Amino acid sequence: MAAKAFVLIEVAVGKTKDVVTALQRVKGVSSVEAVTGPYDVIAVVEKPDVNAIGDLVTRNIHSVSGIARTVTCLTMQLG
Amino acid sequence: MAAKAFVLIEVAVGKTKDVVTALQRVKGVSSVEAVTGPYDVIAVVEKPDVNAIGDLVTRNIHSVSGIARTVTCLTMQLG
Amino acid sequence: MAAKAFVLIEVAVGKTKDVVTALQRVKGVSSVEAVTGPYDVIAVVEKPDVNAIGDLVTRNIHSVSGIARTVTCLTMQLG
Amino acid sequence: MAAKAFVLIEVAVGKTKDVVTALQRVKGVSSVEAVTGPYDVIAVVEKPDVNAIGDLVTRNIHSVSGIARTVTCLTMQLG
Amino acid sequence: MAAKAFVLIEVAVGKTKDVVTALQRVKGVSSVEAVTGPYDVIAVVEKPDVNAIGDLVTRNIHSVSGIARTVTCLTMQLG
Amino acid sequence: MAAKAFVLIEVAVGKTKDVVTALQRVKGVSSVEAVTGPYDVIAVVEKPDVNAIGDLVTRNIHSVSGIARTVTCLTMQLG
Amino acid sequence: MAAKAFVLIEVAVGKTKDVVTALQRVKGVSSVEAVTGPYDVIAVVEKPDVNAIGDLVTRNIHSVSGIARTVTCLTMQLG
Amino acid sequence: MAAKAFVLIEVAVGKTKDVVTALQRVKGVSSVEAVTGPYDVIAVVEKPDVNAIGDLVTRNIHSVSGIARTVTCLTMQLG
Amino acid sequence: MAAKAFVLIEVAVGKTKDVVTALQRVKGVSSVEAVTGPYDVIAVVEKPDVNAIGDLVTRNIHSVSGIARTVTCLTMQLG
Amino acid sequence: MAAKAFVLIEVAVGKTKDVVTALQRVKGVSSVEAVTGPYDVIAVVEKPDVNAIGDLVTRNIHSVSGIARTVTCLTMQLG
Repeated sequence: MAAKAFVLIEVAVGKTKDVVTALQRVKGVSSVEAVTGPYDVIAVVEKPDVNAIGDLVTRNIHSVSGIARTVTCLTMQLG
Repeated sequence: MAAKAFVLIEVAVGKTKDVVTALQRVKGVSSVEAVTGPYDVIAVVEKPDVNAIGDLVTRNIHSVSGIARTVTCLTMQLG
Repeated sequence: MAAKAFVLIEVAVGKTKDVVTALQRVKGVSSVEAVTGPYDVIAVVEKPDVNAIGDLVTRNIHSVSGIARTVTCLTMQLG
Repeated sequence: MAAKAFVLIEVAVGKTKDVVTALQRVKGVSSVEAVTGPYDVIAVVEKPDVNAIGDLVTRNIHSVSGIARTVTCLTMQLG
Repeated sequence: MAAKAFVLIEVAVGKTKDVVTALQRVKGVSSVEAVTGPYDVIAVVEKPDVNAIGDLVTRNIHSVSGIARTVTCLTMQLG
Repeated sequence: MAAKAFVLIEVAVGKTKDVVTALQRVKGVSSVEAVTGPYDVIAVVEKPDVNAIGDLVTRNIHSVSGIARTVTCLTMQLG
Repeated sequence: MAAKAFVLIEVAVGKTKDVVTALQRVKGVSSVEAVTGPYDVIAVVEKPDVNAIGDLVTRNIHSVSGIARTVTCLTMQLG
Repeated sequence: MAAKAFVLIEVAVGKTKDVVTALQRVKGVSSVEAVTGPYDVIAVVEKPDVNAIGDLVTRNIHSVSGIARTVTCLTMQLG
Repeated sequence: MAAKAFVLIEVAVGKTKDVVTALQRVKGVSSVEAVTGPYDVIAVVEKPDVNAIGDLVTRNIHSVSGIARTVTCLTMQLG
Repeated sequence: MAAKAFVLIEVAVGKTKDVVTALQRVKGVSSVEAVTGPYDVIAVVEKPDVNAIGDLVTRNIHSVSGIARTVTCLTMQLG
């Protein structure tokens, strides 16, 4: 079963462009865009399962310099 | 120039499934999913320009019963 | 793959006992306890996958009278 | 199509005057004023499109010393 | 001495267009626009002095149906 | 026309007495008192006009060591 | 020993003028003014002691129609 | 083992005196006082164990008319 | 007239025990306990009058290493 | 009487895996899992009584490097 999440990202002032560029190179990140509003960047991530998303976020996304805080919103297909 | 936004949606308790179903029928909403975390539903919307997104959100999304609050995050392509 | 979540629940004043009793009868809720602190009740839910958890929360938990707001925290096994 | 945004700016204590002066020299900033209330400075920015506003905010405004946090509010002409 | 303020406005869900239209007819409101982000509408008001702005906001703006909350940010010309 | 404002001040832990003493010497500050509750100090400032209050707050108050954050509440005489 | 407090007041939308007028008639309220920023009205109250201020706020101020929430900031003379 | 907690209570505007009076009659409430600051009333409760405190708060305190929200802070004797 | 206050204290991570021990030695602090919930420690302080409580909190409590933030809730005896 | 608590933990960006690993070795921690949503890790702790939980949290959990903030939610068995 595939898993998908929106990762809402707050970035240190002045680092938005760098964070977007770095995240575009992370495998499993299917899209990443700078946005207006309370968050600075929104990434969409897709992986085979929830645990792999956890690994991706805590290991490959949190390690990107300039990221201050992330909120991971996992999608659920309601029956 | 095409415009795209993530609409982060808080829903009245017990109305998530209804809101997802209603939004799937709204033209301009390219995806809509129930999510875990501080928001209940995230919709992705795409329109020819920002003003059309404003119309879509304030007229067609805000009128859906069960929606309590929305935050629109417009995407920006940094140069 | 099994999925598990902590559901942090805020309850209308005076309804804690009723909510705990009602949630104990919901299938898929493996434990439910009144707690001190910013939340009133914490339920642990387990289902075969994330989508089933979404159904459980939005259909069977949100429909319990007295629940004001829930935050679903999905567990992830990091590799 | 022209794009316009209000940029609500929080400034490090003691830096309001410096930030106002610096922003007055940024091209694309059509007005900038110190204000009372929860924000310290409000800038109005205008550019040919949303992406150019994104560049302006993340590159030319975020690089101004003393700016702690910005919230960009893009205007939308409702039909 | 002229006084000017940005009025940041939160609007009841579904009322943005009505509030914008109503505010366009209020004397002393020099511009009013729907916006993305944490506020729904931003109005710019100008009056001969601060007291007149107080009257305008508390009497003519607060009386508009659909407005839930306003934050008035008075501009100050630093010397 | 005279202008008056309440300046609600949050102070770094351990600096309340120093901030009160320093503000008592600032011209235009008509009273300054330590308070209980969410703020640590409240100063009342009076100047000939709003711009002079802006100068006073951003230049003479923000420069006081130990001040972490201020909220300026300008008074308005409603007609 | 005399006691003094600043009462920071949030008012229901459209009721600022009424609340100011009503508070001007309350004995023990030495000044009351509409303000810009996160609060709508600030009243200064003075009474012989803290308990009398408690009575004044909970009995005579809270009973004024249109008041949504108050924060009482008691002044303290540091030695 | 005895258990003790501070119950921080927010009260509906105008109900502070009534809530204090009602709580003084609740068995297990060892003190109750109106307070300044972000809470309106603080009650100290003591019971033989934590579960009895849970019963007291959710059954006997939450049922008092005028109470809007409570935060229970259980004391812990560190070794 | 005696004055009493609850001081709600947030402590730097890992410093709770040290702060409790240090506060137990402060004169005027009648009790101090580690607690669960949004605060880490609650101290009860008693002094001859409000000003002395102000001195105690800003001078003797705020100077304790490890304290990050305090909220002082003064008790009021309603008539 | 046994005591049990959910400890909701915020972790410094990039430290989730390390914190989970460290907590798994702490005696009295019966489970620890990385989670999505506003918290990063949730630990379940069980001890003979509330005081022992206080010791565990303030001494053995708070000392883990990478933990930024914890909220302890003690369970209560309602009668």
